[in-house]
This record gives sequence, C-alpha cells and structure tokens, in this order.
Amino acid sequence: MSDDARARGLGLCSRCHVRKASLRLDYARMSLCDECFVKFVERKVERTLEEYKMIERGDKLLLALSGGKDSSALLHIIKSLAPDVKLTCLHIDLGVEGFSEQCRSKAEELAGQEGVELEVVELRSFLGCTMSELASRRRKACSPCGLARRYILNYYGNLWGATKIATGHNLDDVLAVLWDLYVAGDLLQAVRLQPVTKHAHPKALSRIKPLIELTDFELKAYADIKALPYSPAQCPLGRESKLNKRKKLIDAIESMRPSFKHTFFKTHVKRVSPLLGPLLMARATDWRSCAKCGMPSKGEVCGMCRLKEDLKKG
Amino acid sequence: MSDDARARGLGLCSRCHVRKASLRLDYARMSLCDECFVKFVERKVERTLEEYKMIERGDKLLLALSGGKDSSALLHIIKSLAPDVKLTCLHIDLGVEGFSEQCRSKAEELAGQEGVELEVVELRSFLGCTMSELASRRRKACSPCGLARRYILNYYGNLWGATKIATGHNLDDVLAVLWDLYVAGDLLQAVRLQPVTKHAHPKALSRIKPLIELTDFELKAYADIKALPYSPAQCPLGRESKLNKRKKLIDAIESMRPSFKHTFFKTHVKRVSPLLGPLLMARATDWRSCAKCGMPSKGEVCGMCRLKEDLKKG
Repeated sequence: MSDDARARGLGLCSRCHVRKASLRLDYARMSLCDECFVKFVERKVERTLEEYKMIERGDKLLLALSGGKDSSALLHIIKSLAPDVKLTCLHIDLGVEGFSEQCRSKAEELAGQEGVELEVVELRSFLGCTMSELASRRRKACSPCGLARRYILNYYGNLWGATKIATGHNLDDVLAVLWDLYVAGDLLQAVRLQPVTKHAHPKALSRIKPLIELTDFELKAYADIKALPYSPAQCPLGRESKLNKRKKLIDAIESMRPSFKHTFFKTHVKRVSPLLGPLLMARATDWRSCAKCGMPSKGEVCGMCRLKEDLKKG
Repeated sequence: MSDDARARGLGLCSRCHVRKASLRLDYARMSLCDECFVKFVERKVERTLEEYKMIERGDKLLLALSGGKDSSALLHIIKSLAPDVKLTCLHIDLGVEGFSEQCRSKAEELAGQEGVELEVVELRSFLGCTMSELASRRRKACSPCGLARRYILNYYGNLWGATKIATGHNLDDVLAVLWDLYVAGDLLQAVRLQPVTKHAHPKALSRIKPLIELTDFELKAYADIKALPYSPAQCPLGRESKLNKRKKLIDAIESMRPSFKHTFFKTHVKRVSPLLGPLLMARATDWRSCAKCGMPSKGEVCGMCRLKEDLKKG
C-alpha cells in the first residue's frame, strides 16, 4: 500500500505526522498511515457501538460470519474492543458452487485465529437444497436466500440464548438499499433500516450493525492491513451485481459531492426517521407466531415455512 | 441540429418514422425530429396543465417572463395551447450589470412577437437599489433577490387582479432544490415544492409550474427550434453556479440511471407528498398580513419590508 501512497503523493499521515500516509479518505479530508487508519476504524466502531447502545450489559451476541471482508473485520474489531463479550459466530454455508467453499474455509480460519466458537449451518440441512440447486430451479435466488439467512440467524440465536444478532452490514450496503427506497418513495420501509432494529415478537432478536458508518473501501483496507483471512469472492448468483451497480452510482455521487454517504446516512437516522416515526408506529407490523414453526411471522405461516412447502412441491 | 443527428447516428424519428431524428431523449428511449419534438414538448405541457388542473375557467395568469429560455418557451407554449387565456407578462429588471439588459430586451422582443401585454418593473424602483448595487454591499445576493422577485410577482399579481402566477421552473430547477432538501432530510420543506402551490392568505396568489416535467435540455432545444428570442446568459452574481453544480450532479446520476429525474419527481409528488401531507398540515405556516404593506407575512413585518429597512440603514 505504501507504493500506492507514494505514487499518489499522499505525503505524511494527517494524524501522527510521522509515518507516510498509505491511504486517503476524501470525505474526512485525511490521509492516514496503516497504524493510524487501524485506530481510526476501531475508534469509529467503538463510537457507533456507544452512540446506538448496541452492546449492553449481559448481552450475548450471535455474530453472522460470512467469510467476507466485512464480517471478518467485525469479528476482529469486536474481539479487540470488547474481548470479554459473550460471542458465538454462525456461518451459513449456502452451498453456492465455486463460492461457498472458500467463504466457509476463511470463516473457519478466522474463528480459529480469534479463538471464538463457530457454528456452521448448511443451508441444505435446513431447506433441503443448496442455493445452487435452488437457483437452477428458480430464476430469482436472492430473495429466498435473504429470507433463509435472516430466518436461520434468528432461529439459532434463539436456540443459543443470544440476546442480539450482529451483522457486518456497512455504510455502502445500507446506502445502496436506502437509495432505492428513497427513489421509490418507500420511506416507511426505509425508516425500518436502522443501526439497531427491534421487533415486538419475543423470538425476533434485536439486530445491530456496528460497521454501519464504515465504507467498503475502509473495511477492505482494514482487513488487508490486519491480514485477516477473508474471501474476496462475490456470489455468482446475481444479487451482488445489482447491489454493486447501485454502489457504483453512490460512489460516483460521493466523488462529486464528498461526504454524501455520511451526510445521507446521518440525515436518514437523525432527521427523517424521527420525523416519520409516528407514521411508522401507526402502521407497525402485527407480528404473530408461525403456526408451523412458532417463529415470528407476518401471516398465519412464516415465509420460511412457505418457501419449504414450495420447494417440496418442486 | 440535423448535422449533429447524423454525426450521432440517430436514424429516423421514433414518432413519424419519416424524417431524420435531430435529438435523443434517453429517458424516453426516443430519437425525435424537430417537428415531432415540438409536438412532444407541447403535449407534455398540455398534460401537466390538465393533470394538476393548473388553469381553470376564469383564471387570469401573471406570467413571470425573465427573458431566459424557460419562461420564453412557457409563454410561447401557453399562447399556442390556450390562445384565449387571460395573460399578462411581468418582467423584473434586476439591474444586474452585463446581464439584465439582454434579458429585458429579449423579453420585450418575445412579448411583441406573441402580441401579449408586458409590464416591466425595475427592482431599483421597488428596493431603492439594483441587484448589482445590493451585491456590492452584501456577500449573498441570491436570497434577497429571490425574496424580492417572489414579492414583486405577488404584489403585481394582486394589483392586476391575477388569479395565478405562472413561472418557468423546469424539472432540473425543481430537482436541484429537492435534492438538497432530501439530502438534508428537510422533507417538510421539500413537500412544499409542488407543481401547484397554494397558500391560505388571500393575497398569496397560487403558483403554477407548467414546465415542471421538462428538462433544461428539452426547453433549450424547444426554444432553439422555435427560434424564440431568449438570452442564454447566466446571472453573474452566483446563484446559478450553485444551482448548476447541483444540476450537473443530477445529470450524472441520470446518465447512470436513465429516467432518474422523472422517477424522483413522480415519487416526490405521488408518494412522498401524500405520505407527509398530514405532518405538513400539523405544522402549516400561520400566515398573517404584514403590518407595513399588508402582504402575506410569517411574522409581524414581511421579509421584503425588513429587507427595505435593512437597506435604508445601509
């Protein structure tokens, strides 16, 4: 990275003023060396955890470890910031050929390094088929995949007595989704996207996103500097290509209007969400328990049980 | 324009399939010849007028004729679509050196061609100084300029018994303002921006924006094809440079996500505005009559009278 820094003429680190800067953060108007950058990232997560009261006394976290850069960085940072927090990692092996193998192996490697408990759940054992098999049957695999992942996290979280689920969603992930919701005017759905989400159902675990103020670029740089095991592969089944297209659009906006991402996120959380809160309350989902599995559901039977039924029928 | 069309290989017009296309509208996935494009623009304005019920029986319009491409196109289109509508044009000579002279002369030329009544008001006679003089005294001239223009339009509208004020604001103008309001999370202010605005005060005339679904590009092309007299100059006092910066950002988004502008506008009008309507009602401005001039005011004395006082003090 220092070669790149020299090529770009970044000069000295804006923090320590001693070492050569290795990367530039335009939105923060800073060039940082590896060491100061690592501190910057960890401090940022620490502030996010504090600001949104993400981890409270007595919490037991279930951390969704995909094997990608974000959740790998999340695990490493949480272990650094809160070494004593009760933590279990869950890796869901989606069974996507040529993709899931590497994710699983990196997740296992990192969990070993960090000395944390890792549970691996194969989607096949839950759904009766892998994502590759499902994708060969249905044109759109992303929506059932997301549904299954949310369900499995919540299911095992309950099983293990976790109080919260921590995921590696970062600023770029969240903005890509928010962007589409805002452009479509679906503000009530947008307001459901928060750093911490809670639901009224007793089996719906609270979810926290400690990396929500860090970008893809920052998290990749962090994982690289720390030499964390992670898989750089992207799912070949399509979802990420749409997500990445939106991310590119938002990156282009950011390049024309530096700090757009952070401003838009803060605006969403601090201004739009409080404004729309009362409207959202009035239309809150009436959570029930699924008649088949007892997990939270919007209807008589939950989406996961309906998906299983659909798949049985072929 | 046809040379340009040939160079860009636009082929035949998507509408008539006979003449060569002279311009491309990516958002509408059409290439049109001059003749079909003119019809397309006029039909679009006709639909906007109908959809938002902009002109009703018995209306007398005051049209704000700046001498720029937009209001010039507006006058020409309104005269084409509704030749019998009662119409007076008002040109405000802002007294911006090297800019206002040309705007005024083009407005006078067009009004003569269209055979409509044109009143010219010099800002100096109203405010005691020109905009150039005001700008030399204050760093920010745009805000008092906008205030004065809105006041003068409303003042003369009342004087002449107009029922509505028609302005040439186009889609790009409106989106540039909406963008900043959305990014800042000022949604209640954003919702005030509508194709038709009405206020509760008897002297606050309703305002209509018949060009709100047409872009800068379309209106310039229309004015050029129709060879309407207009001034292409931009105000040297700065406002437009900020506006243009935002327009460039939105153009860049549009180029990556065609029809973004139209989608965002429709979303604003059809989804966000109805959603936030109840919140806006609850915080509606309590309009009063200015203690000095009797015009609509948010406080004891209106902004215009306060500006005049400030200017007197030097």
